[in-house]
Amino acid sequence: MTYCLSIHCNDGLVLCSDSRTPAGSDQWAQYSKMHRFVWPGNRLITLLSAGNLAVTQAVMNRINHDLQHQAAQHLLSLPSLHEIAEYVAVISAETQKSMIKRGAPRKSFEATFIVAGQIGQAAMETILIYPQGNFISQSDYYPFLQIGETKYGKPILDRVIKADIALEVAARCALVSMNSTMRSNKTVGPPIELLIYRKNDLKMSIYMTLTSTDPLASQLAEVWNKGLTQTLEQLPKFPWEL
Amino acid sequence: MTYCLSIHCNDGLVLCSDSRTPAGSDQWAQYSKMHRFVWPGNRLITLLSAGNLAVTQAVMNRINHDLQHQAAQHLLSLPSLHEIAEYVAVISAETQKSMIKRGAPRKSFEATFIVAGQIGQAAMETILIYPQGNFISQSDYYPFLQIGETKYGKPILDRVIKADIALEVAARCALVSMNSTMRSNKTVGPPIELLIYRKNDLKMSIYMTLTSTDPLASQLAEVWNKGLTQTLEQLPKFPWEL
Repeated sequence: MTYCLSIHCNDGLVLCSDSRTPAGSDQWAQYSKMHRFVWPGNRLITLLSAGNLAVTQAVMNRINHDLQHQAAQHLLSLPSLHEIAEYVAVISAETQKSMIKRGAPRKSFEATFIVAGQIGQAAMETILIYPQGNFISQSDYYPFLQIGETKYGKPILDRVIKADIALEVAARCALVSMNSTMRSNKTVGPPIELLIYRKNDLKMSIYMTLTSTDPLASQLAEVWNKGLTQTLEQLPKFPWEL
Repeated sequence: MTYCLSIHCNDGLVLCSDSRTPAGSDQWAQYSKMHRFVWPGNRLITLLSAGNLAVTQAVMNRINHDLQHQAAQHLLSLPSLHEIAEYVAVISAETQKSMIKRGAPRKSFEATFIVAGQIGQAAMETILIYPQGNFISQSDYYPFLQIGETKYGKPILDRVIKADIALEVAARCALVSMNSTMRSNKTVGPPIELLIYRKNDLKMSIYMTLTSTDPLASQLAEVWNKGLTQTLEQLPKFPWEL
């Protein structure tokens, strides 16, 4: 399984992804699911990927190949994030189709992507590409998008994330959302990648990976657990307790 | 959708269920999913139900019919919670089978139950019955069971619930877990039923329903949201913020 999250704030973007890739309960590996393409001063494009690893790797290989060989369309030539989403969506759908032709059921080859970034002075964009090749953008009312194992980490986002949240607070919220998901589903796991992009920077403002032994990760989990327990104690008492 | 939760503490049981029953986005209704059978001083048996409403109603009708007509086996005659689970599991599997025979696919007739309670001086039991008719008990290491839309409400339980938690704290935690689920999935909704059973009481210690306008429910959501926001502010800062 996978959990990737993109928060679209007024001040910038927060992207967060896990790295665990289970192919059966006795076959675990780590693969990055955060694919970063940065041309400082020109554009920053990030792809988060979830789903069948053979498909997502084939898609990324094709994207990199197009870039290296200056294909008709590539990440540096396309003029907008929406056109990049369309480009990735077509590659993803084609890749899935070609694998389905080899005989396995459609479901097993599904892949989902989030494309987020900024090109020049155009507005930042966050776009979720479905396995079917269609896609949607973030909304001001709903300024985050998730792919993979999305449910465990969603309640904290639903309660806290608004477009005007400070970038660092959103980043901590993303790490909490990831921590909740990892606790509840063992197929989501470290290292965690975190990218913070400040609007108009046109480079990675902050990029970090947190391993399972990283003090920040364990402190965060500890303070969060303690805070929840304290909040639970502060909740209104039942009538018969008063 | 449905969300039902049973927490098995050393001191007793906490059961919580929603009441929303959507049959399509324009057809909403409220049905209780917490079926309470109490013979004070003798036994308390609670069934929580999730899944196809026609199936769960047929199962409950059969259980009530067996009781009224003193069938060979019924809730008051069976000597243990495990035998009651077996009895309910067989009825559930038979009901599903008879509906599948009418032509629809198996999946659409699935039903899941939690049976929890105490009989005389025997130990309390919490048992989850799968649609297939097999079942499992709670564990001391994992003292809660959920059915229906389980994921949104699970992180708080994973972080907080231990067998030695106080009953009222567990009950507040159940309400938070329910609130998180309702926020994230609109097909889970009020009124919420909450039952607290103190070990060896052999009657309902506390039973309450919380409607959407109940002050306790809105205060709880408000204090919880505030506590989460405060905890988020207390989380360790990133190195570049110091």
